[in-house]
Amino acid sequence: MSIIEQNKLEPVSLKDVTINDHFWAPRRKINREQTIPFQYKQCKETGRIDALKLNWKQGDPEIHPFWDSDVAKWIEAASYSLATDPDAELSKLVDEVIELISAAQQEDGYLNTYFTAVKPGKRWTDLRDAHELYCAGHFIEAGVAHFQATGKCSLLDIVCRYADYIDSVFGPEEGKIKGYPGHQEIELALIKLYHVTGEARYFRLSQFFIEERGNEPHYFTEEKKKYGPGYFEELFSTFANLKEYNQSHKPVREQDKVVGHSVRAMYMYCAMADLAKENGDEKLREACDRLWNNLHYKNMYVTGGIGSTAEYEGFTCDYDLPNESAYAETCAAIGLVFWNHRMLQLDCDRKYADALERALFNGVISGISLDGKKYFYENPLESLGEVHRKEWFGVSCCPPNISRLLGSLGQYIYSQSDSEAIIHLYVSGSAKFKLANQEIKLNQTTNYPWDGNVSIQLEVENPVSFALKLRIPSWTKSAGLKVNGEMVSLENILDKGYVRIEREWKNHDQIELILPMTIEKVYAHPSVRQNRNHVALQRGPLVYCIEGIDNTHYLSQLSLPRDKELTAIFDQKLLGGIVKIVGNGEITEVYDSEDLYQTKPFTTKSFEMTAVPYYAWDNREAGPMKVWIPES
Amino acid sequence: MSIIEQNKLEPVSLKDVTINDHFWAPRRKINREQTIPFQYKQCKETGRIDALKLNWKQGDPEIHPFWDSDVAKWIEAASYSLATDPDAELSKLVDEVIELISAAQQEDGYLNTYFTAVKPGKRWTDLRDAHELYCAGHFIEAGVAHFQATGKCSLLDIVCRYADYIDSVFGPEEGKIKGYPGHQEIELALIKLYHVTGEARYFRLSQFFIEERGNEPHYFTEEKKKYGPGYFEELFSTFANLKEYNQSHKPVREQDKVVGHSVRAMYMYCAMADLAKENGDEKLREACDRLWNNLHYKNMYVTGGIGSTAEYEGFTCDYDLPNESAYAETCAAIGLVFWNHRMLQLDCDRKYADALERALFNGVISGISLDGKKYFYENPLESLGEVHRKEWFGVSCCPPNISRLLGSLGQYIYSQSDSEAIIHLYVSGSAKFKLANQEIKLNQTTNYPWDGNVSIQLEVENPVSFALKLRIPSWTKSAGLKVNGEMVSLENILDKGYVRIEREWKNHDQIELILPMTIEKVYAHPSVRQNRNHVALQRGPLVYCIEGIDNTHYLSQLSLPRDKELTAIFDQKLLGGIVKIVGNGEITEVYDSEDLYQTKPFTTKSFEMTAVPYYAWDNREAGPMKVWIPES
Repeated sequence: MSIIEQNKLEPVSLKDVTINDHFWAPRRKINREQTIPFQYKQCKETGRIDALKLNWKQGDPEIHPFWDSDVAKWIEAASYSLATDPDAELSKLVDEVIELISAAQQEDGYLNTYFTAVKPGKRWTDLRDAHELYCAGHFIEAGVAHFQATGKCSLLDIVCRYADYIDSVFGPEEGKIKGYPGHQEIELALIKLYHVTGEARYFRLSQFFIEERGNEPHYFTEEKKKYGPGYFEELFSTFANLKEYNQSHKPVREQDKVVGHSVRAMYMYCAMADLAKENGDEKLREACDRLWNNLHYKNMYVTGGIGSTAEYEGFTCDYDLPNESAYAETCAAIGLVFWNHRMLQLDCDRKYADALERALFNGVISGISLDGKKYFYENPLESLGEVHRKEWFGVSCCPPNISRLLGSLGQYIYSQSDSEAIIHLYVSGSAKFKLANQEIKLNQTTNYPWDGNVSIQLEVENPVSFALKLRIPSWTKSAGLKVNGEMVSLENILDKGYVRIEREWKNHDQIELILPMTIEKVYAHPSVRQNRNHVALQRGPLVYCIEGIDNTHYLSQLSLPRDKELTAIFDQKLLGGIVKIVGNGEITEVYDSEDLYQTKPFTTKSFEMTAVPYYAWDNREAGPMKVWIPES
Repeated sequence: MSIIEQNKLEPVSLKDVTINDHFWAPRRKINREQTIPFQYKQCKETGRIDALKLNWKQGDPEIHPFWDSDVAKWIEAASYSLATDPDAELSKLVDEVIELISAAQQEDGYLNTYFTAVKPGKRWTDLRDAHELYCAGHFIEAGVAHFQATGKCSLLDIVCRYADYIDSVFGPEEGKIKGYPGHQEIELALIKLYHVTGEARYFRLSQFFIEERGNEPHYFTEEKKKYGPGYFEELFSTFANLKEYNQSHKPVREQDKVVGHSVRAMYMYCAMADLAKENGDEKLREACDRLWNNLHYKNMYVTGGIGSTAEYEGFTCDYDLPNESAYAETCAAIGLVFWNHRMLQLDCDRKYADALERALFNGVISGISLDGKKYFYENPLESLGEVHRKEWFGVSCCPPNISRLLGSLGQYIYSQSDSEAIIHLYVSGSAKFKLANQEIKLNQTTNYPWDGNVSIQLEVENPVSFALKLRIPSWTKSAGLKVNGEMVSLENILDKGYVRIEREWKNHDQIELILPMTIEKVYAHPSVRQNRNHVALQRGPLVYCIEGIDNTHYLSQLSLPRDKELTAIFDQKLLGGIVKIVGNGEITEVYDSEDLYQTKPFTTKSFEMTAVPYYAWDNREAGPMKVWIPES
């Protein structure tokens, strides 16, 4: 049996999951009450909403070709929120925007403000750079989410008409365009649309876009011969001329190295994983796994951030992970979560959940301030103090992307197959599974990520046999397990990093999982030249950083001796309540010379160092920060 | 007495100096025989020479506004070469180019190919960005050098007419433009012109340009109001809008921090030092010294490279010295030599000569390949293997700048005052001084920079009393001195890092200076975050680097234990004959996991490491390089 056949997992739907912990629940509340309304306000004030009225004319302020996607992602985020936390006012606002979208849709189903209002007559002439199919993908994702959340078809119908129209334009058939998007996104969206509608043509179209990519003659080369340069000069990018930039340098099945723009890559890999699962296509899964290995073993920051260069928002070469200039776009870390979530359903290996968790607790939520009102586009691992979150961006992909992730967090926690209930992430709350023809409820209680003790209680109507699988995160060194108060040895029940407890379960059965969280000093592979002689601190899923405000503004003068102990302390008053790490670091003694270079090593003295979770940095006064600390 | 009054040094003219050592003489030969002819060929082939014919018309390939300066610097380099090594063919070629220049000069004395042929009618409308006065400065320097080398007035007359015209256009007088150049250069050139002609108006014009700079209302602000943006849009630069970029943010006397474009800064500081000396202006010398301190104690690479960012070819913030992305433009290091040379005449303190030597032996000559045919514009201190010298550049300021420095090297070695003969640099050869109404000759013999033993023999007609001053470089820890075979204690005769031997000197008096060269591990100030836990190797004036070809292509896996000995070995066959440094480094053991991050430190094993002088890197097969090595 292939790996795909062995697994066949489905995520438990976010509507069947509750989250009531002290870590995520408050973030999700802020997302609902502050972030989503604030993002609407930004979309409104910047003209993104009104652009849907299509009354742009020469001389008006510029409409950006990406704007539709921001509005769509806002609807998607709002929909997830409505799915778990109904809100009449928000629902009404969403409906109003959908009405504008409906009015903006053209007779033939086409839907794009930029090409309708600003560039009429130029549809599908710049697939490579103009984000037309990208925006379509986000509309589709929004339509699906809105339908699933509310049961309303208003937006779903619109996007189906649009998808039908796109299907009439693109495809392998005679007379259709053999192109594909310069920014992948619609591929994964069409799979979602297929799932809610059952219409196989959406699935086939997604497959066409993915499989056509990178073939010769190369579509983008031909497109530029036909229409450019000059035709779309304002969107022309130096990098876009490189096929690697948008991962069209080879057919996707032949790719084995992450290249180019990292968000494009992630969205493409998501669709590849979806297609592999749907078709039981083991070869395609293997292509995904090759890319996964290259990314996770050679190109990922310890925070789960990916894409190290700002130059083209993407990957450079293996082991090139500069800290200060790290781009590590928030959207790319979110894309990493999306992709690992899909890989996990294909193959229930903890490595995917570990990577998902690493990104989620670090490089994703660093992207939003604790008050939910400011965002990082880039997430460097070191700053001299000049980097701060902003309320909005000209290209504002990241804010609504975080919102939709927080809103849909429920779907990342659990999976199930015909015979297994699986917990990937530890979050207080509950989930409903359908197994052996009955509804089974799992109640999780944990103080995660501050400690690793997890209690799970079952609610079943009748005793029922199934396997409960619990992830043992790779960051813990000695997990313990009790079932109904009795210790269970993990030795023979570990399966790719998950304990698998197969038995007849009864109502109120109780599982205790103990995941000891110790402070770990993390070393990067020696080929990462930027981190030689440095350590990062990690405790549980959280990567830590040192900030100037807790230490000294001369962070470069601090080091951490290899042999000294560090202590974890919960501090209720700090940054909304966090476990901080304190201990003896070293700081260079006052230097006895103004010389920039000298031939004797400088001396150090003891220094009380405090580290805080990376995600929480830049939430107090401006100052320097670093994740990797010199080891002395 | 002020410091300026105490010193009053003059460099010994390059015509009175011979160089016949094994280090510089071969480089100067290559400069004459390969580099200067090759640069002429480049100037010819790229259209720089023919541009002087002024027959450019719409549709022709672009003429760059800087082109005149490349031709002028080539003439200057050729002239220095002719001064010490007559060459009829080269002389003829120079004369031909001067004829073209003569023909290109306008009736009123104006001389600029770009503004005459490409932008007629736009003279002096973009002082900030268009390099008009910058090119004029290089013509003037060329005219002075050509006159001094050959005694011919052909180019000197041209540049005097041009300078006279410029003097009629700029100045404090009613009706004249109160502007100054966006790229400083003419200021130092006018001082040179003043020295050869004795015309005070050139000196006053230089002083005007320097003193007017940074005053309010700000000239460049007013200029852009009057003519731009749009008027010169093709030259418009984002950075040029910042007054710091061209050091016009404050009057020069108030400046105390190096900012902006580093070559502009160096050329300006040169003129400031010149004016300070000429006027005995102690306040202006102090302004120079403040800037010097900020540069040398907080903003200079260990190679003497300066200007750490490529973004605007300039300075960032104190202690920000990234290695891999170091810009460290060759021209900037050359500018550092120019400036320190001037500071040294103002105040005979070895710190200036040390800095000059550091730049000269490292960040300057790294700019040219051993065969004299390829150049670095940027001189990073670390490379993954993708950085290589090139034959020429679109903006090709660096190649002729190195040539003119190598050609004029003689003038940097010695100085004299009324009563002192001073040796700053140790180079086999000789120099003639005029002291006490007689010509005194010093003959130097040394194997510098491979060892630090220097023999000096005097030739005097009659016994004569004067002070001989010899620099004790700061890199040596225990210098020794013998006069006519007898040891002399340095204790009471040290004066700002120079030994001062005042006595009656006789013919064939013999001085032996012993400057022990040991391998030094250099540590950067702990505020240089990029070099924490790293060491650089230095021996004598040479900074070393490790290259992939001698070690491993995984340079990031190498480290250097603090306690291990290193050995210096002269290797005649390597890189034209160099002292290499070898010793036990450490390399990480084969890593037992593909994980990018792990929680145990990796282990290392012994590794035979070889370091070569930094200037010689990238002269063999392509590969990685680094100066700063992790210390273990």
